[in-house]
Amino acid sequence: MRIEFISTGDEVLSGQIVDTNAAWISQQFFDQGRTFTRRHTVADDLASLIDIITETSHRADVVIMNGGLGPTSDDLSAEAAAKAMGVPLTLSQAWYDHLVAKYAKSNRSLSVSNEKQAWLPQGSEVVDNPVGTACGFSFKFNRARFYFTPGVPSEFKHMVAEQILPDIQQRFATVSVPTLIKIKTFGISESVLNEQLQALNLPDSITLGFRVDFPMVEIKLLSTNSADLQQARARVVAEIADFILFEGDFSFAEYLQKMMLDKGKTLSLAESCTGGMIASELIAVAGSSGYLDSSHVTYSNESKSRLVNVKQTTLANHGAVSIEVAAEMAEGAMLNAGVDFGIAVSGIAGPGGGSDEKPVGTVAFALSSKTGTYSQLLFIPRWSRQGIRTVALYIALDMLRRALLGLDLAAEFGSVERRDERVEEK
Amino acid sequence: MRIEFISTGDEVLSGQIVDTNAAWISQQFFDQGRTFTRRHTVADDLASLIDIITETSHRADVVIMNGGLGPTSDDLSAEAAAKAMGVPLTLSQAWYDHLVAKYAKSNRSLSVSNEKQAWLPQGSEVVDNPVGTACGFSFKFNRARFYFTPGVPSEFKHMVAEQILPDIQQRFATVSVPTLIKIKTFGISESVLNEQLQALNLPDSITLGFRVDFPMVEIKLLSTNSADLQQARARVVAEIADFILFEGDFSFAEYLQKMMLDKGKTLSLAESCTGGMIASELIAVAGSSGYLDSSHVTYSNESKSRLVNVKQTTLANHGAVSIEVAAEMAEGAMLNAGVDFGIAVSGIAGPGGGSDEKPVGTVAFALSSKTGTYSQLLFIPRWSRQGIRTVALYIALDMLRRALLGLDLAAEFGSVERRDERVEEK
Repeated sequence: MRIEFISTGDEVLSGQIVDTNAAWISQQFFDQGRTFTRRHTVADDLASLIDIITETSHRADVVIMNGGLGPTSDDLSAEAAAKAMGVPLTLSQAWYDHLVAKYAKSNRSLSVSNEKQAWLPQGSEVVDNPVGTACGFSFKFNRARFYFTPGVPSEFKHMVAEQILPDIQQRFATVSVPTLIKIKTFGISESVLNEQLQALNLPDSITLGFRVDFPMVEIKLLSTNSADLQQARARVVAEIADFILFEGDFSFAEYLQKMMLDKGKTLSLAESCTGGMIASELIAVAGSSGYLDSSHVTYSNESKSRLVNVKQTTLANHGAVSIEVAAEMAEGAMLNAGVDFGIAVSGIAGPGGGSDEKPVGTVAFALSSKTGTYSQLLFIPRWSRQGIRTVALYIALDMLRRALLGLDLAAEFGSVERRDERVEEK
Repeated sequence: MRIEFISTGDEVLSGQIVDTNAAWISQQFFDQGRTFTRRHTVADDLASLIDIITETSHRADVVIMNGGLGPTSDDLSAEAAAKAMGVPLTLSQAWYDHLVAKYAKSNRSLSVSNEKQAWLPQGSEVVDNPVGTACGFSFKFNRARFYFTPGVPSEFKHMVAEQILPDIQQRFATVSVPTLIKIKTFGISESVLNEQLQALNLPDSITLGFRVDFPMVEIKLLSTNSADLQQARARVVAEIADFILFEGDFSFAEYLQKMMLDKGKTLSLAESCTGGMIASELIAVAGSSGYLDSSHVTYSNESKSRLVNVKQTTLANHGAVSIEVAAEMAEGAMLNAGVDFGIAVSGIAGPGGGSDEKPVGTVAFALSSKTGTYSQLLFIPRWSRQGIRTVALYIALDMLRRALLGLDLAAEFGSVERRDERVEEK
């Protein structure tokens, strides 16, 4: 089955916006066991649009067209479809009435430009858009079933998930929807993962996919054979257990929040080189106030002493990037905030500030709890300032995960090197 | 002139990676006054690759092909090009010698799979890759000049900027490279900007472009006529002065850092709903320790009192999201850290936690300095939790920009509504 996708619009073509719709829909189809055979990006002039509609109509079984359904004169997708098929545009009375009612609700009358959105190529079926004014539409032309969709991501995603994917599934029931397992890994590169998992020779019924969500790599296992899938899952987990953060379709912060709330634990942070990144990542999840008390972004040495009680002598003797300072930061955050866990990060994110002894990429971590403090000095090689900060964020959160699960806090992460560590028990 | 771009690879086609190379190169070409006529994404099987190479060779003047130059058996771009043209692959002795020397440096010998990267379609010219092992190559086929490029973004970008763009400029000297002015705006939507600037009827020599970098919108003005360009710039600035953050090709944090360091000012933050986002954005720029002392991520009410001296009575009487609490947070941050400016943000980012009086999107801001404290309560409508936090981040930083420039701190931002404000002078 050949499925093609067309993005329209000068904004996409000139790089003014990144085509996230294309990546998103590709993944949705992949997760349902279908893969695009080709994607296109074309300018929104009438000739280019007619060309691509005609070309794909002869070659594909399904064509999804994205963009160009708006109210302005630049929005030419419906007109191009009608011209390609040699049919007129006709008024969809149903969508017209829907628009009139929608505008009446906010005491407005329908403008001529919005009325345009109810004119569809003759013979089209309306595809509902409950969240916007542009209706989608669908028709058969030559070999292909076409779906026209709005460019606004929220409207597009809604329409694809709720209507187009189920419609394709019904019309082309050649593919059973597979079950999908997502496993999030950290500390192992996609190429190494790929090599190790290919070597397992999983059964042919299993489709293996990867998605990089830096610094995590997500493994996808798909199959319509659930016995095979469970067996494959077990073999994958056994092969790379040390690198698995969690399974499921949510973020690391969501995963940790659930565990923290379930266990009734509370947290405070002391961040230097991550500088608020860890707190911001956790607070991105609604309900994080249930366990996160505060973060102390102690960027200056003075603020490390003032906010989390780091001793002047510790700073003077060991420097700000040291397990000694990180340990005092984590303990200070925990005790001052009166919480169960304190986590601290202090490092050299570069590009300046490195030395022979402590090069750029040297980062100290500590986790304090009622039973004591674990601190470690790691060397995170090669990445940019943002890369080092992001990897540090994940290492810090992984320490919390390990503490909650009772695992060893000293994990191995691919090319990251441990240069020092200390355990202080209470 | 017709320019087309081809992305190859199942990873792009299945949405496992977002095609940022395509957006990046589109912008580079746009900035040089050239626009792609079409982009393609194809699977990395030999038949699909031969098809697209043949198809585009008849239609385009320039085709840039991205990906499939690696050492593995999946990397088929060179083979496909040779088959499409009906020529053999031949060894590029120059690139082979280069690879042997490169590997010798790290005491390794060249593997058979890496040697493959020196086999190019007969008649190709090598395009140097100083940062990787895959050389690019270029040839003429039918109407089109082809450039084959590696998929690794850093190698791709280097090759396009340093070699391919200059080569196209030399071969197709029909377009003079324009001068480019970038103006960053905030608080005005792209569609409204577009309408207002189209109405200026700028001269035909001016190309107007937009790039959304949420919540900023970047305006691009391009022209090869510098008198026209300066005049257009002045008219655009006059038209939308209130919404301009700055001009130039850097981030808002970089712009503010330069101003803070130039003026010798220092800053501390108190963040609630932004939760470390502001600090993290500022610390993303190397050298930020020159002016940023600390941020107090005071997510709980207790931490607001403990870290930035918010009074229990103020919290009880006005609630955490109020100009009174924001003002105390900003002043507490400034005084405790001993810095020139304190900035505070406290709001309801949702989706829960709103009330009739203070719905989701209600955010209190304050800026303290030696002359006093300005606080305002704004309503940021419609966006998601992350959207509200990001807009709040930009409003907070804009307050700092206005304070540094001696402008009125109460700015108008499109659909954002001011519900309360207070000035306390010292």
